[in-house]
Amino acid sequence: MPESIPVVSYAACADVGGTKVLLGLVDEKGRILAQDRYLLGANRAPAPLVDELAARWRVLAAGSGLAWDDCIGVGCSAAVMGDIEHGVILSAPNMLPEHRNIPFRDMLQTATDRPALIEMDAYAAALGEAWLGVGAGVDYFVYVVVGTGVGAGILMRGQIFRGWRGTAGEFGHTTLDPNGPFCNCGRYGCVESLVSGPAIGLRARGAILQGRETLIRRLAGEREVTAEIVFEAARSGDAVAREIVETTVEYLGIALSNLVHLLNPQVIGLGGGVMRGGADLLMMPLRRQVARRCGPWVNVDAMRIALAALGEEAGILGAARLVWSAQGGL
Amino acid sequence: MPESIPVVSYAACADVGGTKVLLGLVDEKGRILAQDRYLLGANRAPAPLVDELAARWRVLAAGSGLAWDDCIGVGCSAAVMGDIEHGVILSAPNMLPEHRNIPFRDMLQTATDRPALIEMDAYAAALGEAWLGVGAGVDYFVYVVVGTGVGAGILMRGQIFRGWRGTAGEFGHTTLDPNGPFCNCGRYGCVESLVSGPAIGLRARGAILQGRETLIRRLAGEREVTAEIVFEAARSGDAVAREIVETTVEYLGIALSNLVHLLNPQVIGLGGGVMRGGADLLMMPLRRQVARRCGPWVNVDAMRIALAALGEEAGILGAARLVWSAQGGL
Repeated sequence: MPESIPVVSYAACADVGGTKVLLGLVDEKGRILAQDRYLLGANRAPAPLVDELAARWRVLAAGSGLAWDDCIGVGCSAAVMGDIEHGVILSAPNMLPEHRNIPFRDMLQTATDRPALIEMDAYAAALGEAWLGVGAGVDYFVYVVVGTGVGAGILMRGQIFRGWRGTAGEFGHTTLDPNGPFCNCGRYGCVESLVSGPAIGLRARGAILQGRETLIRRLAGEREVTAEIVFEAARSGDAVAREIVETTVEYLGIALSNLVHLLNPQVIGLGGGVMRGGADLLMMPLRRQVARRCGPWVNVDAMRIALAALGEEAGILGAARLVWSAQGGL
Repeated sequence: MPESIPVVSYAACADVGGTKVLLGLVDEKGRILAQDRYLLGANRAPAPLVDELAARWRVLAAGSGLAWDDCIGVGCSAAVMGDIEHGVILSAPNMLPEHRNIPFRDMLQTATDRPALIEMDAYAAALGEAWLGVGAGVDYFVYVVVGTGVGAGILMRGQIFRGWRGTAGEFGHTTLDPNGPFCNCGRYGCVESLVSGPAIGLRARGAILQGRETLIRRLAGEREVTAEIVFEAARSGDAVAREIVETTVEYLGIALSNLVHLLNPQVIGLGGGVMRGGADLLMMPLRRQVARRCGPWVNVDAMRIALAALGEEAGILGAARLVWSAQGGL
């Protein structure tokens, strides 16, 4: 008699950003059985994107000895504005800039022959962290992503606080300083214009334009100045870089304090490239800033401001959590 | 045979502020069967306050031909920080300044011989408006009170977003301008320091100190300048008063836009003395400010920024809603 092969069920998930796609097959416990990544090309349209996802999921499954029949559903986290309930992407400026009102869920369903769902990236990452990361077991959890953009996912007892039209969490475009710098959204002094990666880079360019002596200039060379370069210079003790880090911490500290006052989360999880790249420089002074601004009536010592635990995988894990819930597995 | 008297069940409710108490007996439909108000004296302690509430509720019921036996429970909205679940007032700086950790619910229960509950004032008002006012039937509703203080109650499908330790909604102490004026909380540039009644009064005093020609001076006479006086002067066309109103609208507009970005409510209900006193001057320009700052990705034209509908009664109606829910009536 042939040995029986154990059936392993899994959710097939993807996190589609502005430039890259992360794929993962995730079991009921949140274990990533297989993963892959690729870069989105320049010519983008919904149908080829869906076809590529479907094909890559199947290849990934086959390569791991998993049957496509054992895929319980597919879930896609994406940098979009969407009507999540109906699985429609209303607008995806970075991912599919020239397309509107894309029935992405139904397209995924047809291409994969599996139940499908979509989720907005900040919410998916928040759900991932709430499942297996810093938000696990937490009633009031806010996930904040600080990277090229700034956003937030608000969870109340595991439920997403979506807002009326699904746009809640636009933390990056709350005004932090009415007299602050110009923001991509066309306004001034938004959180994003003050603490995002590009905002940090801009501060460094400003210092260089002012002719200040700084290691940043040498580290950047001909490249554009990034937050990563500023962090590297700060670690080497460069005074200008340290000043830029301080300014960033001060603004982000105020912004997080505003979240604490308004939402009183038990845990704020911080993810995104800026937080991952500068955690050693940012986390301690950030905690001090928030404590200074929220004490004593909020017990800031007891609440946690923590680096997100799942790194880049938060999005696919959050999508997997949703697929497993939808299929009655969790 | 004697005519049978119809049994009218009701909740006995109170809204206890820093200076005055509003009492009401409220039926299942939210009709106020009887109401009363009185001023809190200078000597304040929990036991006499509870005894006075209990006595006045009974008098109010008797005066309206209602039997105390038909009171299904008592509910008290109050300007407190509390452990609402356990009915304990942790701190009530304006109402009972020298007391801490008061088992207010149990005291009410003992004094009235009825099931009791307490609620924080902004949340109670939010619930009242969500029951019978501008938040009725709305999934995502934020109630904002602008008066001596500034606060908010956030509702998601009728459920209060309380936060981890019950302090969510501290909207008044979110930072709006890091370089703004000193706030009672010991920090700078909080929403409360920029748009509350006292903040408006302070702007007027500033103008007077600068020697500017304004009707406000004459209207105030020997009295302290209040927001009410500024509004009166603005209605008469006084340029200084109009400028103060404009500045206030600009700040409040930014603050409300931040709420829209973060929470995407369908309706923001505006209550409190400043809003009631200056609605004719504030509402239209406020809506314009928010539209300018949130469009186009939030459909601001479709969302509503409305004056709260229940006036001062919002708190007792919200408390009544809670009592009726707790007693299985709703």
